Amino acid sequence: MQELGVVHRTITRASRADVDALAAFGVSTIHEAMGRLGLMRPYIRPVYPSAKLCGTAVTVLLQPGDNWMLHVAAEQLQPGDVLVAACTTECEDGFFGDLLATSVRAQGGVGLVIDGGCRDVDTLREMDFPVFSRAINSKGTIKATVGSVNVPIVCANAMVDPGDVVVADIDGVVVVPASRAGEVAVAAGQREAREEGKRRRFAAGELGLDMYTMRESLQAAGLRYLD
Amino acid sequence: MQELGVVHRTITRASRADVDALAAFGVSTIHEAMGRLGLMRPYIRPVYPSAKLCGTAVTVLLQPGDNWMLHVAAEQLQPGDVLVAACTTECEDGFFGDLLATSVRAQGGVGLVIDGGCRDVDTLREMDFPVFSRAINSKGTIKATVGSVNVPIVCANAMVDPGDVVVADIDGVVVVPASRAGEVAVAAGQREAREEGKRRRFAAGELGLDMYTMRESLQAAGLRYLD
Amino acid sequence: MQELGVVHRTITRASRADVDALAAFGVSTIHEAMGRLGLMRPYIRPVYPSAKLCGTAVTVLLQPGDNWMLHVAAEQLQPGDVLVAACTTECEDGFFGDLLATSVRAQGGVGLVIDGGCRDVDTLREMDFPVFSRAINSKGTIKATVGSVNVPIVCANAMVDPGDVVVADIDGVVVVPASRAGEVAVAAGQREAREEGKRRRFAAGELGLDMYTMRESLQAAGLRYLD
Amino acid sequence: MQELGVVHRTITRASRADVDALAAFGVSTIHEAMGRLGLMRPYIRPVYPSAKLCGTAVTVLLQPGDNWMLHVAAEQLQPGDVLVAACTTECEDGFFGDLLATSVRAQGGVGLVIDGGCRDVDTLREMDFPVFSRAINSKGTIKATVGSVNVPIVCANAMVDPGDVVVADIDGVVVVPASRAGEVAVAAGQREAREEGKRRRFAAGELGLDMYTMRESLQAAGLRYLD
Amino acid sequence: MQELGVVHRTITRASRADVDALAAFGVSTIHEAMGRLGLMRPYIRPVYPSAKLCGTAVTVLLQPGDNWMLHVAAEQLQPGDVLVAACTTECEDGFFGDLLATSVRAQGGVGLVIDGGCRDVDTLREMDFPVFSRAINSKGTIKATVGSVNVPIVCANAMVDPGDVVVADIDGVVVVPASRAGEVAVAAGQREAREEGKRRRFAAGELGLDMYTMRESLQAAGLRYLD
Amino acid sequence: MQELGVVHRTITRASRADVDALAAFGVSTIHEAMGRLGLMRPYIRPVYPSAKLCGTAVTVLLQPGDNWMLHVAAEQLQPGDVLVAACTTECEDGFFGDLLATSVRAQGGVGLVIDGGCRDVDTLREMDFPVFSRAINSKGTIKATVGSVNVPIVCANAMVDPGDVVVADIDGVVVVPASRAGEVAVAAGQREAREEGKRRRFAAGELGLDMYTMRESLQAAGLRYLD
Repeated sequence: MQELGVVHRTITRASRADVDALAAFGVSTIHEAMGRLGLMRPYIRPVYPSAKLCGTAVTVLLQPGDNWMLHVAAEQLQPGDVLVAACTTECEDGFFGDLLATSVRAQGGVGLVIDGGCRDVDTLREMDFPVFSRAINSKGTIKATVGSVNVPIVCANAMVDPGDVVVADIDGVVVVPASRAGEVAVAAGQREAREEGKRRRFAAGELGLDMYTMRESLQAAGLRYLD
Repeated sequence: MQELGVVHRTITRASRADVDALAAFGVSTIHEAMGRLGLMRPYIRPVYPSAKLCGTAVTVLLQPGDNWMLHVAAEQLQPGDVLVAACTTECEDGFFGDLLATSVRAQGGVGLVIDGGCRDVDTLREMDFPVFSRAINSKGTIKATVGSVNVPIVCANAMVDPGDVVVADIDGVVVVPASRAGEVAVAAGQREAREEGKRRRFAAGELGLDMYTMRESLQAAGLRYLD
Repeated sequence: MQELGVVHRTITRASRADVDALAAFGVSTIHEAMGRLGLMRPYIRPVYPSAKLCGTAVTVLLQPGDNWMLHVAAEQLQPGDVLVAACTTECEDGFFGDLLATSVRAQGGVGLVIDGGCRDVDTLREMDFPVFSRAINSKGTIKATVGSVNVPIVCANAMVDPGDVVVADIDGVVVVPASRAGEVAVAAGQREAREEGKRRRFAAGELGLDMYTMRESLQAAGLRYLD
Repeated sequence: MQELGVVHRTITRASRADVDALAAFGVSTIHEAMGRLGLMRPYIRPVYPSAKLCGTAVTVLLQPGDNWMLHVAAEQLQPGDVLVAACTTECEDGFFGDLLATSVRAQGGVGLVIDGGCRDVDTLREMDFPVFSRAINSKGTIKATVGSVNVPIVCANAMVDPGDVVVADIDGVVVVPASRAGEVAVAAGQREAREEGKRRRFAAGELGLDMYTMRESLQAAGLRYLD
Repeated sequence: MQELGVVHRTITRASRADVDALAAFGVSTIHEAMGRLGLMRPYIRPVYPSAKLCGTAVTVLLQPGDNWMLHVAAEQLQPGDVLVAACTTECEDGFFGDLLATSVRAQGGVGLVIDGGCRDVDTLREMDFPVFSRAINSKGTIKATVGSVNVPIVCANAMVDPGDVVVADIDGVVVVPASRAGEVAVAAGQREAREEGKRRRFAAGELGLDMYTMRESLQAAGLRYLD
Repeated sequence: MQELGVVHRTITRASRADVDALAAFGVSTIHEAMGRLGLMRPYIRPVYPSAKLCGTAVTVLLQPGDNWMLHVAAEQLQPGDVLVAACTTECEDGFFGDLLATSVRAQGGVGLVIDGGCRDVDTLREMDFPVFSRAINSKGTIKATVGSVNVPIVCANAMVDPGDVVVADIDGVVVVPASRAGEVAVAAGQREAREEGKRRRFAAGELGLDMYTMRESLQAAGLRYLD
């Protein structure tokens, strides 16, 4: 249950094997393999273009202008975890910078997804510490009000449970429930295999109209060709 | 006339010579040469910074969340064409990805401008397949409802007729009516020549106030200098 | 006083020594050293990622779709100045391009911050002429209506007085009042020194909870740990 | 052709009979009768909730921060006309107020649709002069740069030709090409008649699932009911 | 679990008594009584100012531009239910109008909250059928792709489980988990009682500084009074 | 100087006579009389349509999600004052509701302008307590971090000094420097007198083209009339 003032120390993470399997795929492939669910809103963008991450979520519920809970969350990280932070309201302050990135990495964390702002972007890129955020913003934050760690959150309109797999790249951010991670990785692999065949056929000049046998259904739908 | 459920197979493209002539200029120069018309809204951005394109428009009118007409349009492409896609409503779904890019390129198409979303951006950049879109978004689309191909459309607030020249670079996207392409290319060349001379004079320290003899009109407009 | 139709030729610039001292720091550090004031809204972004600037403000108050005052302002530049331009209303037109950049540089200007649009971005990057703007837009502007130069302005919600130090990098844009520039540079240096020590401790695995002795205050604030 | 600096004095208006026929219907009904085309973006809103209009378009292409062409357009109005104004760029200035409304009404004009701002809203409501705009804004405008009157324009992403019928109410703004006005009025009437019957059936408790015989297609589409 | 293509016919609704108890309070009071959780983003607005609702959620997951699932959901309504609809992507189409409102009311439904568009607003106001939406938009929708009914959804960044209590008024929309409805109603009543006393003291001229004994903590926080 | 942690108890208010004189005019008239300066961005809107205010500013600089300083400011109010509140960052939380309105009124305050959110809107309308805000939002705030009272602030991109006159109605919000209040009131009166004459002439059918003798300058600007 969503709740303020609570840190759950024990969470059920997706298995390392499933995370590793998912890490081989891009976000668009996984989103399709998920049945087109689990995607964050596209306003969440990498703070540098080559940023990528895949890991298990330690969730954080922040208060506006306050990054106290990110420090609390750092202690809960295990190797391979990703911080996923939402705020109780819309706020683009710079909740996160290079010092916290250093701390997160030292605890084994592999990156951050935040429905808020981020700063020290030059240093983050030099560190190759991947952050996906809604804004880049120097605005500093305080440490005064408690939120929560490892409760279910909504981040950029996606539900995230602690332990879920979060995958992010330049196409966006997708959340795979821990319980579905293995199955989704398999489906993603199958999709990628199918796509490879299609890519060759498209490159050879075959049209989607023929590859997907769309001509009949287009006609049934009333599409008219005029000269 | 704007209409749904129609594919026009025969369109009047700007001449290859005019397209080639326009390809030598940047969007800002062409927009000025056009008399400051024909520009799309600046929310259309390249999906990677070095993307550039110049070609004749094959227009597409999409339905929200549905990329069926992009497959229909692929068949209508001739070498040098650019897909220009609008939607009947605002929608940032990922209508286009690397498979369609492969197909478009195989048919001779040189790029895409879309008032919608796009995905597989890493691969598009590796292919150097230029896309200008309003969003980057993994969200997949369906193939269920017909729109149109090669009807007049409004894309990001600009009118586009099939066959018009579309030029896009990091400064934006401009649409040159097929009938004006030659004249605009000439005007663009003249403007660029003039600008080169101005650039040298500015670099040598001459002020715009003097180069454009603005001092008198500024005084007439009431500008006061105070010490 | 904010006023239209006026150019102040005499302004009090921050000292060169203070500007040079501030130039050594990033925007986020200076914003903290300022006591978290003076930041522009985060919608002002560099037009290419490596853009950076630090200099004394020559302020410009523009009219919508009109860049006349940028030419007027160019004459007021002294080496090390930055143009800082606001508009009497929201307008994303391309007020500034490579010709003006050539002129500004020839007068000793080091860059531009504008709550408006900018064009010729490819050339600006080649010139390494830093511009921070709210939009990239080919849309040209006219020269018909007077605004002002070197009056106090509000740019992206920050107050800027002529002569203030403006520092901009990928994290944002901060304005340091001329009278506080020396003091802020000292504070920024102290902050950076402190941060270096913290960085090492974070890298060694120390937690923010311990470094900042937060555990007690978190408990007092009611944070509960659950297993 | 879209062009600057031109006033077309002779335009082909939809017939009075067709306008009167369309005036009987709401925007949503007409939009459906049009085949779901011709709608402006929903950011255009009435400046007071009960505003409604239906008339033939006199189109205006404005320059940013400049309402000169609205005065030029006033002279071109005939009884029953609606001013439809777009701008060469996005601008929310207050291009229109109660004085212009008085003039427009004196010339026989029945209202305004503007992809820009409007002011004197209290007086407009007292006059019951319907305005549909993207903003309410006191910001005044100048009279310095020519645009055009009675050229084809794009207003809030919809194409408008001079003489087209424009219908606006609280649901939005729809543009009916003059040549289709009669046919669309007939279709709107048919649709409304059909809707009345459906309304009664819905009110009596019949479900859409049964009225539209959707159960089979839902099952075919894979919808599963679980208890 | 969030899933597409599923209708859950059996859900656990909050008790009628708890819903009735909550209906006595405004959204701001309930949001406080909830511990400041459960609020939708403020872009969800009533389509007419006096709209208000309180009921148990029947959740709907829509596809972009497609309102098929609203018809499916209508069959699942019980007296006192509220439709709460989200979409798999951002879409402001007019998913809902007066015919569906008639059907929903005939099934016992009391209103709609939708992270999408709505139309026929004049009729909805006449019916006093409360709708809270992100847009008013005539744009029609199709019936082609399945979503889900009565699965957990995220609506305007808030989690909604089927059966939760949804309360909406001019201040916003709040979601109370069914299991907490009774407790929250009690807390809301207590809060309202406390507020009444405070209101009288404020009206009598007592300051918040004294009523909440803030002077000492302000001084401790470093606030300085200057003359 | 903009500064945090400070309350100025002594400010120079515009004279009561000047405030009363300005109260007779609408915002659009005063904005014109000011020379088109001093206007807030149009995203600040009345929370109910008939809200209006005119008074002397007591300025407040808030921290995100924190309304502590509004209580501090309440003590500084004198009869006829308006609270004008900005935040150190963008935040749409509900900083203000009916209890604070009761307190402000009891201290003689006449309304609020806030670059943030507001709640209890139904009660505010019943009280006829005018609030102009950027959002309506139930989200509550805390009392933890100091800002300032009666320092210069930037509110919705307008500079506001304590004691300035703030006038707000449905057209927007304008700030008149205390030192200019008398002069602006006179200019507003003159403008209104001139407008009354123009209104009659427009109503009688005279065109702006003739009233403002624009025909020659339009021709000089190149406007062409075509039949």
